[in-house]
Formats: sequence, structure tokens, C-alpha cells
Amino acid sequence: MSHVASLDIVQTDIRRVEERMYAQANEHHPELQAALKHLVVSGGKRVRPALTLLVGEMLEGEKERLITLAAAIEMLHTATLVHDDLIDGSLLRRGIPTLNAQWSPGATVLTGDFIFAKAARLAAETDSVRVMRLFAETLAVIVNGEITQMFSSQGLASREDYYQRIYAKTASMFELAATAAAELSPVSESVLSAMQRFGYEIGMAFQIVDDILDFTGEQERVGKPVANDLRHGLITLPALYYYEAHPDDERMEAVINTGINDKEIEELISDIRQSSAVKQALVEARNFAERGVAELEILPNNQARSAVIEVAYYIVDREL
Amino acid sequence: MSHVASLDIVQTDIRRVEERMYAQANEHHPELQAALKHLVVSGGKRVRPALTLLVGEMLEGEKERLITLAAAIEMLHTATLVHDDLIDGSLLRRGIPTLNAQWSPGATVLTGDFIFAKAARLAAETDSVRVMRLFAETLAVIVNGEITQMFSSQGLASREDYYQRIYAKTASMFELAATAAAELSPVSESVLSAMQRFGYEIGMAFQIVDDILDFTGEQERVGKPVANDLRHGLITLPALYYYEAHPDDERMEAVINTGINDKEIEELISDIRQSSAVKQALVEARNFAERGVAELEILPNNQARSAVIEVAYYIVDREL
Repeated sequence: MSHVASLDIVQTDIRRVEERMYAQANEHHPELQAALKHLVVSGGKRVRPALTLLVGEMLEGEKERLITLAAAIEMLHTATLVHDDLIDGSLLRRGIPTLNAQWSPGATVLTGDFIFAKAARLAAETDSVRVMRLFAETLAVIVNGEITQMFSSQGLASREDYYQRIYAKTASMFELAATAAAELSPVSESVLSAMQRFGYEIGMAFQIVDDILDFTGEQERVGKPVANDLRHGLITLPALYYYEAHPDDERMEAVINTGINDKEIEELISDIRQSSAVKQALVEARNFAERGVAELEILPNNQARSAVIEVAYYIVDREL
Repeated sequence: MSHVASLDIVQTDIRRVEERMYAQANEHHPELQAALKHLVVSGGKRVRPALTLLVGEMLEGEKERLITLAAAIEMLHTATLVHDDLIDGSLLRRGIPTLNAQWSPGATVLTGDFIFAKAARLAAETDSVRVMRLFAETLAVIVNGEITQMFSSQGLASREDYYQRIYAKTASMFELAATAAAELSPVSESVLSAMQRFGYEIGMAFQIVDDILDFTGEQERVGKPVANDLRHGLITLPALYYYEAHPDDERMEAVINTGINDKEIEELISDIRQSSAVKQALVEARNFAERGVAELEILPNNQARSAVIEVAYYIVDREL
């Protein structure tokens, strides 16, 4: 991340966000402290808190409350990952053992619950009832999305289904980050709405790029097999575009419903990678990011705004 | 419950609380709606919302906000039960199949999370940041208590350990109910503190009585074997008193650590039931309830206060 200047700028604040996260286990059971430390240390790129802080800075929000908010958002994100990894039986995340790889299912469920509680506590510390509401609503959207996916008959989802799914899974949290940062800043309702749309658009872009990287990334770097989603029958945007262009390719039907052999899946993945589908998906991600950036035109053109724009484009161009 | 007049009085409001609970799944996945309906229908005596409403009425809080608060509290309680039953592998609660008896562990975790989200959303609807904080803190206390119990080496806990455990498990939620109802009412800080202590005391009384009923209840009525906790190596107040009076009874050590055969456990349970330990525990529960009721002396003596006192004593005298 060091090549993105605006992300460099917030690194000191991100350290403070992480300290706030650690501190949530103080005065609680030592195992909870150890679990939280493990989770914070094995955390990712901190895109959500970085976005929260940069949007807040752009809107001249108060730094302390923004750090609290950013910690609350990353805690909420972390709690959902703890339960997701348990439910999916994932043993590694970013190459580091997950909590459920080391703990019983019961202890993992409870640790997730504890982190939800602490996310809510941090959100309450922002002293904004509207921020609290956004938190609760976002968690409901995320969980409802997961339940919907769990109970849906797997099928060749439409692009509309795909967008609903990635909104629930990812964009809702980006929307929360940008909107809540605006809530804690002295801005008008129209700026607030613009920030909500900005968060939505770049959140969508972020997940599409994640789904592209699943196809294009090298296994060593990503830490899981190429096209891991497709191998599990999950159809993301590159595969959707490929299928739209090749509606008669029976392997697509097979990968979801009837099953597909090892040779065929490798060939299918190779065909999708070589098709124009990946590029089409990238164009779509850029469209989302550009619509997001366009929402920033309501604000004065200054350095803080440039930093937010830089992050928005980093989201699309990272690791490609 | 029909013999307790003050509980009869709030039945209409309790129906409204349940409607608020149902409504939380509106516009979400049908399976979530079905799960929530199942949970609400199989709900218990609604002691927590009843207490919330009666305390709120006594303090002249606004009815609509109190109903929202009561729904939030019962949702929080319900969410913790969903995860507890999953973790404990309990297949029945109050004689009705638990969610985890019918659903996958993953779906059950997510449904619990969804109900947490909706509890937080309802709490936010009270428009009180202090109420939101209390909610988040209470959930952290409950989960920390469960984690502590999970990681503690089972042993002959002290009475102090026992009180800490039942505070986390039960009294914290009663404290929340009474304190949050006071937060939504036009009262002084000293009344607020008195209500917090009131909630604490009667919550402790409630759990001690639960633990007594575990020993004295008839299997058919309680829906689980007599002394179910002791059979699982969990030492509650009656067993603690018994052990204090019989420190040389090696069966107590055996039931926790080395194991005990069927004949011996039945004899031990019978001995505890016939000892003065049950009565001692009941005296202790009454002491808690009386200290709780004494906190109400700060308030004018009127019908609403009498209703709260009636519920406080009902908590000790129920089903004995």
C-alpha cells in the first residue's frame, strides 16, 4: 500500500484505530484479549477505516470521533469475518490461521458476539444516534444477505442478483463508512446523501475487483487457488459476463449443478481468463468508481478531496 | 402468570412488544421471518419486558419508547439464547425444538446475529445514546461471562464466583431493563442509580430461584431432569450451600472432576434436596429481592410502585 500517498498519510491514525480495537478486550477474559490481538494483528489492508478517516478529514469532522468510528467499523467487519470463517470452515485468512482453526466452534461464536458488542459500544461512543442506527441496519443487511445466499438454490444468478449480493456483502459496509463519517462532520443533508452514494459506488467497485482478482491473481499471492469462487459454484461478475457471451457453454451449468471434473474446470477457468469477460468486469468496476468520484464534485477541490479520490481509484487499480 | 395482577396489567403491552419483535423480520428473507416467528411464539414468560414496562410506567416514561425498549431487550435476550442453545447443543427449550435442532449451525449463527442487529436497531429507536451504550455493555458482560465459564477449569466455585457468573448471565440483563427504562423516564440521577441497583438485585434473585427450581422442580414440569446443572458438573447455590455444610462429601468433588456413577448422583441430588441448602438459597434469593424492593423507597408509594414490588416478589415465589 505504500505507493498510495493518501493511504500513507493515514497510517498514524490507523495505528490509533488498531489501539482502540485492542483496548476493547481490556478487563475481559485473557482468552478474549488473546483472540482480539490475534485478529487485529492478522488484519488486512484497513481499507474501511482508511476510507472513514479520509472522508471524515475531507468533511472536517472531529478527529477523535472519527478514530472511534473507524475502530467501530473495523470491529464490525472483523466480527462478521469471525462468524463467516466459522460457517465456511475456512482455516486460513490472508495466510494466517483463523480463530475457528484454533478454537472450538462455541468459543468462536462467542468471540464474534463479543466483537459485535464492542463494535456497538464504540459506535455508541460517537454519541450519534444516527450512526448507531446505521450500524444496526448495516449488520442486518449483511446477515440477511448471507442467509439469502445460504437458502437460495444455487443457480446461474442474474447480474441483478450478483449486485444485490455484493451490496449486502461489501458495499453496505463502505456505504456505512462514508455515511457515518459524514454524520460526524458539519455537512448538509445533500452532502450526506452524496457521501452515501459515494460509499455505495466504491464499495461495489471494491467487491467487483475482489472478484476479478479471484480470477487473475496468482495462487501464491492470493493464498488460495485461482477462481476459488467458481470452484465452489459461486458465480461472480467475470463468470457472468463470460456466460452471457457463451450461453451454450454447458460447463457453466455443470459447475453449478451437475458437477464438473478437474480437467474441465481448469479449462473453463482458463477460457474465462482469456475471454473479454475479465476486462468487461474491470470496466464495470471503473464505472462504479467513477460514479462514486463524481459524487465528490459537490465538495471543494482541495488536497483532502484528492486523497479520497486517490483511494477510490486505488480500490480499482490495486494489485492488477 | 395469571395470578400476578401486575403481570396481567401489562399483557396488552406485551402483545405489542411481541408484534414489534415479529416486525423486525419484515422485508427480510422468508426463512428469517419463519425463524423469528418460531422464536417469538416459543418465548417464555416475558419477565424482562414486563419489568421494563412496569418500571417505565412507575417512572412515568413514555409508553411508545418503553415498548420499543422492551422489544429491544427481549430481542437481545432471544439472540443470546439462540447462540447458547447452539453452543450447548440443546435441542429443546421450554419443551419446544430450538433453532439449532432444525437448522444448520451456520444458519443458526446468522439468525442469532440478525437478532442482535435488530435488538441494536430497536435500541437505537429509543433515541437515547445512553440506552445504546447500556445495550452494548450488557452484551459484552454476558458474552465475557460465557467465555470465562468456557475457559475456566471446572471446580468447586466459590460463592463469589457463582455471583459473578449469575450477574453476567442474568442479572446484567435485569439491570439493563430497569436502568434503560429509567433512562427513558423523567427522573433524577439518584433515581436512575436506585433503579440500576433494583434491577441488579432482583436479577440475582431471579437466577438463584431458577437454580433452586432446577433442584426442586418436577421433571415433567421443568422439561429437563432434576438437578440438570449438577449432572453437567455446574455448581449452583443450593449445591454450594450443601458443600459448605458437608465439606467432606467426596461425591461433590467427584461430580465435577473424577466422574460419578448414576446411583451416586441420584443419591447426592436427593441429599441436597433434603438438606437445608435449598432453603438457605431461597433465603438468599429473598434477601436480594428485599434489597431490590428497598431501592424503590426513593419513589412515591402508589399503585405503579406496588405493581413493580409485586413482580419483584413474584420472581422469588414463582412455581415454588
